[in-house]
Amino acid sequence: MNRLEKALEEAQATLVLEVERLLPESVAPEARVVQAMRYATLNGGKRLRPFLVLTTAALFNVARQSAARVAAAIEFVHCYSLVHDDLPAMDNDDLRRGIPTCHKAFDEATAILAGDALLTKAFEVLGGASTHPDPSVRADLVVALAEAAGHQGMVGGQMIDMLASTSKQPMDIPAITRLQRMKTGRLIAFSCVAGPILGKAHSNQRQALEAYAHDLGLVFQITDDLLDVEASTEEMGKKTGKDADQGKATFVSLLGVERAKAQAQALGDQAIKHLDVFGDCDAAHLLSDTVRYVLTRRN
Amino acid sequence: MNRLEKALEEAQATLVLEVERLLPESVAPEARVVQAMRYATLNGGKRLRPFLVLTTAALFNVARQSAARVAAAIEFVHCYSLVHDDLPAMDNDDLRRGIPTCHKAFDEATAILAGDALLTKAFEVLGGASTHPDPSVRADLVVALAEAAGHQGMVGGQMIDMLASTSKQPMDIPAITRLQRMKTGRLIAFSCVAGPILGKAHSNQRQALEAYAHDLGLVFQITDDLLDVEASTEEMGKKTGKDADQGKATFVSLLGVERAKAQAQALGDQAIKHLDVFGDCDAAHLLSDTVRYVLTRRN
Repeated sequence: MNRLEKALEEAQATLVLEVERLLPESVAPEARVVQAMRYATLNGGKRLRPFLVLTTAALFNVARQSAARVAAAIEFVHCYSLVHDDLPAMDNDDLRRGIPTCHKAFDEATAILAGDALLTKAFEVLGGASTHPDPSVRADLVVALAEAAGHQGMVGGQMIDMLASTSKQPMDIPAITRLQRMKTGRLIAFSCVAGPILGKAHSNQRQALEAYAHDLGLVFQITDDLLDVEASTEEMGKKTGKDADQGKATFVSLLGVERAKAQAQALGDQAIKHLDVFGDCDAAHLLSDTVRYVLTRRN
Repeated sequence: MNRLEKALEEAQATLVLEVERLLPESVAPEARVVQAMRYATLNGGKRLRPFLVLTTAALFNVARQSAARVAAAIEFVHCYSLVHDDLPAMDNDDLRRGIPTCHKAFDEATAILAGDALLTKAFEVLGGASTHPDPSVRADLVVALAEAAGHQGMVGGQMIDMLASTSKQPMDIPAITRLQRMKTGRLIAFSCVAGPILGKAHSNQRQALEAYAHDLGLVFQITDDLLDVEASTEEMGKKTGKDADQGKATFVSLLGVERAKAQAQALGDQAIKHLDVFGDCDAAHLLSDTVRYVLTRRN
């Protein structure tokens, strides 16, 4: 196993432990919503965002427990967004990570509530005293996550995506770039600046990680579009070929497969370049390995 | 106009100004979600929660701007919960405050996203530097609101309510009290402790307001159950007679109208008693007037 695979496995284990700690099984009358929250978060995702939090936190020697809590908070937000996006009124997906989506395993009302409660829990965790001894760091994390996840960020991006799927007007590359930056890029960027926020890093270090995250987010999206064309439903654990079926404009439909691959490669090179400021250290190596991993992923 | 009506009108005006400031109209591609967020919050509700924030903040001479931001944050959470509860998969309501519910005026996907974005915005506002100069106060507000709104509070209460409507097991008074305390009581309680948190009040003052809020919340719920039996859809601006139609156990179905009224009155007297610690001041008078207002409300 290479160092990145090892670090990803460690991040997965850390995340699961932290979710178990923050969201234990309940026997209260409302236990069903807790079960659905656990179902949506303990389902073996790649945990890319928690990994990015833990790795950027390691750059600044942040206490592991602080980083683990922030990692869990981001994963709560990521998972809530998947639960709501999968709903019949949104993308209407039955399958996620190879298992039934939350509203299929439970029901729509429970899925809506579980998503709401996961989003709420993320802020409870970030604001909590055990996340960082300095309350200004906790307040900064809360605001940064809210801005990344809200109408200016992830939710706004999903709104544009929904509108694009019903509108006759095709999107161009700048419009898709903006959409993806909001829909997935902002949360990936928050995962990468969580480290410098927790570690009270210099602004040039934070900016370098923001730039890295911006490029990485686009690489991730372009490879996602490529996989939707090239991979099977079995490999991905979710339905593929959807973009073309829906006539959706993507990086691949606009650029073609070859130019999209070249674009992903160029953005990946650029992402790695931003890491120069951190010199030759383990965490920085892991972050550049991540770019190569995303470029070559098969699911 | 009496002093309570004047204070309620002032709270409404303050809330509208603050929402306009925090959520201006947008011309961005995602404008639709912002429109839906504004539709859900600028629709002339009673603004009881913002009023409670402003009034309990006045007890401790908190800066009006701080209190106004927290008032808006709570109203964002209250309104998000109404938008999601009204969805077809939940209570399936077409009418709210006399106008079409958010998913009727827009569509389900937009309503889900607008609710998500309102919840997120609430935490962005609480964490923001202009809410209070002391970051530990901001972090405390974030945690307190999240605990009140999440699976331990409002969302958990809604889950129990949904389960009760499909289950054959009738609820008893302790179970309904717990449900209502979670579903509506916790957010009302947060509205009342926002003042002492912002004003760094003594713990006995905070506890007195928590006890007041607990009783007030139950009075509010019992009168809500009574209005569902006694008021018309026109008076309420939402469908009435629903509880009986659905065979739902409420304080009124279990106690009968007369005993429910007596219970509300007794809880109201107790709520007012908790205010003794604040002596003879305008804000305390407004809080006791509020109890009488809720006891005699017609909508």
